[in-house]
Amino acid sequence: MDYRELTGSREFVASMTHGADWRGQIEEFARREGIGAAVFFGLGTVQDAAIWYYDQDDEAYRETVFDEPLEVAACVGNISLDVDGEPFAHTHAVLSREDGTAIAGHLDAGETFIGELYVRTFEESLERVPDETTGGDLWAL
Amino acid sequence: MDYRELTGSREFVASMTHGADWRGQIEEFARREGIGAAVFFGLGTVQDAAIWYYDQDDEAYRETVFDEPLEVAACVGNISLDVDGEPFAHTHAVLSREDGTAIAGHLDAGETFIGELYVRTFEESLERVPDETTGGDLWAL
Amino acid sequence: MDYRELTGSREFVASMTHGADWRGQIEEFARREGIGAAVFFGLGTVQDAAIWYYDQDDEAYRETVFDEPLEVAACVGNISLDVDGEPFAHTHAVLSREDGTAIAGHLDAGETFIGELYVRTFEESLERVPDETTGGDLWAL
Repeated sequence: MDYRELTGSREFVASMTHGADWRGQIEEFARREGIGAAVFFGLGTVQDAAIWYYDQDDEAYRETVFDEPLEVAACVGNISLDVDGEPFAHTHAVLSREDGTAIAGHLDAGETFIGELYVRTFEESLERVPDETTGGDLWAL
Repeated sequence: MDYRELTGSREFVASMTHGADWRGQIEEFARREGIGAAVFFGLGTVQDAAIWYYDQDDEAYRETVFDEPLEVAACVGNISLDVDGEPFAHTHAVLSREDGTAIAGHLDAGETFIGELYVRTFEESLERVPDETTGGDLWAL
Repeated sequence: MDYRELTGSREFVASMTHGADWRGQIEEFARREGIGAAVFFGLGTVQDAAIWYYDQDDEAYRETVFDEPLEVAACVGNISLDVDGEPFAHTHAVLSREDGTAIAGHLDAGETFIGELYVRTFEESLERVPDETTGGDLWAL
């Protein structure tokens, strides 16, 4: 695999804003703090969620919207700069219902009820570039 | 979102005690080491699990007990001080059965079979205070 | 629980190789970089997955193969040295289908489509030794 050693910079914990979009507020935070590379993980609850699944044959995302309150059993992701140079929070999540059943995938959006996040930033920036093999925007390492 | 930059302190790996409560032993470790703020993630197996789901309308937890051996496919959480000043390990987990089906949520309790944890502590302490909007005890950042 | 304080060493981000085995390439990376202890988390997509569940009574793994494209909603794990002194990437994953349904467990193998990983290494090495109580190879801490 391609990899790159990075230099750890700052560490944050965050209490996410009730009623705001889960991913959007991570990106707003990244813009405000000038973060070009970071990883994060956390947990919480959302009031709904738009989950994306990548169709590997068609190279396109398929969205399923869950319009129901859900636990965020686990959220893992990273921050890097998209092809336009803007902070993008690549966010995956495992969500669950009252009976414990789990749904999971790429979290495009979700209205935060409560969220607790740990963010580890790096001195360097990571940039995404289009990848012909997969159709995704992958890190230029 | 509200956030706070913290200063990384110590890093631990742990092999959890067979037969002991998953969350309880994290809190016991935090008390012994005087930890007031940390994040953790890990994996393992449990012999049972009490999973909580937060009812956002009633502002109360609903418990489902799974009295069966389960993989801990992923465990993420954090340590902070609860409203009484005691270490509280906010612990979420994704569990799975032999056929791979997943259940997830807030892990209140679970009898450890095997557990491997990474804990990152901070110099500062994080304190929880009651939040009127959500009914939860959230970090004072 | 048994635990050990470790000294953080290097931090990496990786873009995993399309078409290569998910766990195998983490171990190849560990061998190349001489890593004796690390933790990691990440996300991505796989083209298939061999998920293991540990039968706590029989002390043996049960495998289920999912021959279908899946999101890697969350991957958490660690690197240590197995009983032969070789790097072993203990890898758990939560996977999901187009409709969001989740499957999870110990990820023995999976053909990578896209993968993004964060790896935190330590100066010390962690070694696994057979454990009589559980039948697993656990860290000697």
